[in-house]
Amino acid sequence: MILTVTLNTALDITYRVPSLRPHAGHRVSEVTERPGGKGVNVARVLAALGHEVTVTGFAGGATGREVRDRLASGAPGVVDALVPVAGATRRTIAVVDARTGDTTQLNEPGPVVGPAEWSAFQNVYEELLGSVSAVALCGSLPPGLPVGAYAGLIRTARAAGVPVLLDTSGEALRRGMAARPDIVKPNADELAELTGSHDPLRATQDARRRGARAVVASLGAEGLLAHTSDGLWRAAPPSRVHGNPTGAGDSAVAGLLSGLVEDLPWPDRLTRAVALSAATVLSPAAGDFDRRGYEDLLTRVTVTAEATAA
Amino acid sequence: MILTVTLNTALDITYRVPSLRPHAGHRVSEVTERPGGKGVNVARVLAALGHEVTVTGFAGGATGREVRDRLASGAPGVVDALVPVAGATRRTIAVVDARTGDTTQLNEPGPVVGPAEWSAFQNVYEELLGSVSAVALCGSLPPGLPVGAYAGLIRTARAAGVPVLLDTSGEALRRGMAARPDIVKPNADELAELTGSHDPLRATQDARRRGARAVVASLGAEGLLAHTSDGLWRAAPPSRVHGNPTGAGDSAVAGLLSGLVEDLPWPDRLTRAVALSAATVLSPAAGDFDRRGYEDLLTRVTVTAEATAA
Repeated sequence: MILTVTLNTALDITYRVPSLRPHAGHRVSEVTERPGGKGVNVARVLAALGHEVTVTGFAGGATGREVRDRLASGAPGVVDALVPVAGATRRTIAVVDARTGDTTQLNEPGPVVGPAEWSAFQNVYEELLGSVSAVALCGSLPPGLPVGAYAGLIRTARAAGVPVLLDTSGEALRRGMAARPDIVKPNADELAELTGSHDPLRATQDARRRGARAVVASLGAEGLLAHTSDGLWRAAPPSRVHGNPTGAGDSAVAGLLSGLVEDLPWPDRLTRAVALSAATVLSPAAGDFDRRGYEDLLTRVTVTAEATAA
Repeated sequence: MILTVTLNTALDITYRVPSLRPHAGHRVSEVTERPGGKGVNVARVLAALGHEVTVTGFAGGATGREVRDRLASGAPGVVDALVPVAGATRRTIAVVDARTGDTTQLNEPGPVVGPAEWSAFQNVYEELLGSVSAVALCGSLPPGLPVGAYAGLIRTARAAGVPVLLDTSGEALRRGMAARPDIVKPNADELAELTGSHDPLRATQDARRRGARAVVASLGAEGLLAHTSDGLWRAAPPSRVHGNPTGAGDSAVAGLLSGLVEDLPWPDRLTRAVALSAATVLSPAAGDFDRRGYEDLLTRVTVTAEATAA
């Protein structure tokens, strides 16, 4: 069983409009909804790969009920261990302009989580750690949580002997690094914000010195750059993939995590993560991956070892 | 008891963002939600005026549950007689740009209503008509309903001896007119679409010849123009009122309907409708009215009789 944590779950709503014009009225021609938040997306991909997976985090209000209903009915293989919260789970609205294909994103802040709710979550989390082989901590912190929340969850996982992957940004990432997670997966912007360097090679190595055992930077269309105790690698798709990048980072996390629990060597983990990520860009539905594309890409991703800095 | 019908109820959501930029990501700084759809808004104003009011129409899905929960907890004096529907009640999203104050509106289409659901609604409606003094039919038709839906509901109300007000647009208005409602309240655009004339005086008289016993056209800041069996009147606020016009038309409907059940002469009904409408523009919260402004305006609205065309 793999555990994914999404403290700020979401009801992800996509609207299709003929053309988005600020300060006008729009009839939405198509509405789609699904449970979201990074850890929920990671869980969906892990389940599609055949892994047993449990999601935890918070869910509350009518939107939280909707997230749980949809997990129960539409996400086979994903076990719901979300913890109730008094506030309402946030919505995210992606407005797709049918004319240009561009997306405008509106993200609600999420419910304020109180101290008793945070404490209840920590108890559930600690209990779940007793029966899982790995845990991923994903996404932003909802209002009310201490900025060191992830650092605490990482320490608890390490004390339980469960390997932990962290995928977040800003101060939550900075504080989490110091608690020595097994893997962090920043994107280029998050890495630059953390280290102050826009050179990914240098920034990845600098980030690793801050405490993570492995840093896997996702560099968009260029693939992944990984600095681990076994070496430094670049993994890249065979050619530029065109499509919708929403969820590509979450698919990469699912690839890394499944490779971790299957005890694959790093180059194989990176191959899987890049193939899943590119197959997610190929899929027309945001966050899903194209299975045939994935299987084809698995044979065509290139992994190159690089020399580490002195 | 007054009955308002909202076949396409809504969960009205307002987002405040620092500045809306198409194709960018936005953190929403403030989220407000309330039950909506024109008939629900009319009911809220009627209840605030001290009337007993029942709302019916359709509600379904998680959003429908939220609408009903919020009616129960946040709309004192409004009785919920909404009819269940399998599809989900639509959301409307108003994105307010904090920099300019402008609003961008995104409206979902609403659930598809099936024949059995429409039939169940008609039974509930007919039963409710037995105990009400007036009924208002408000807003757009959800997908799946016949375009003559309002015409049928008007005939049922007339057969039950209940006076009926119709506030809709397009073909639903055109078809509804032929069933001889007691009052229709088009705005200037709806009136022009119905009659082909952009001259409100001429269009109002033309509209009345199509079947309604009284036509009350809402002309924005200029107030109301009413053609009734008792005469032709203009009713205007004392000066231009600045603020948020959302819901002003629904407040005018509430004024007309309360004046009808209290059997006020037409000039007094129009005074109340204009005062409520202007007091709604004055209120900072969309759709609420400013009670002190309303009471002040009641003494300052002017009603002028005009000669009818031959």
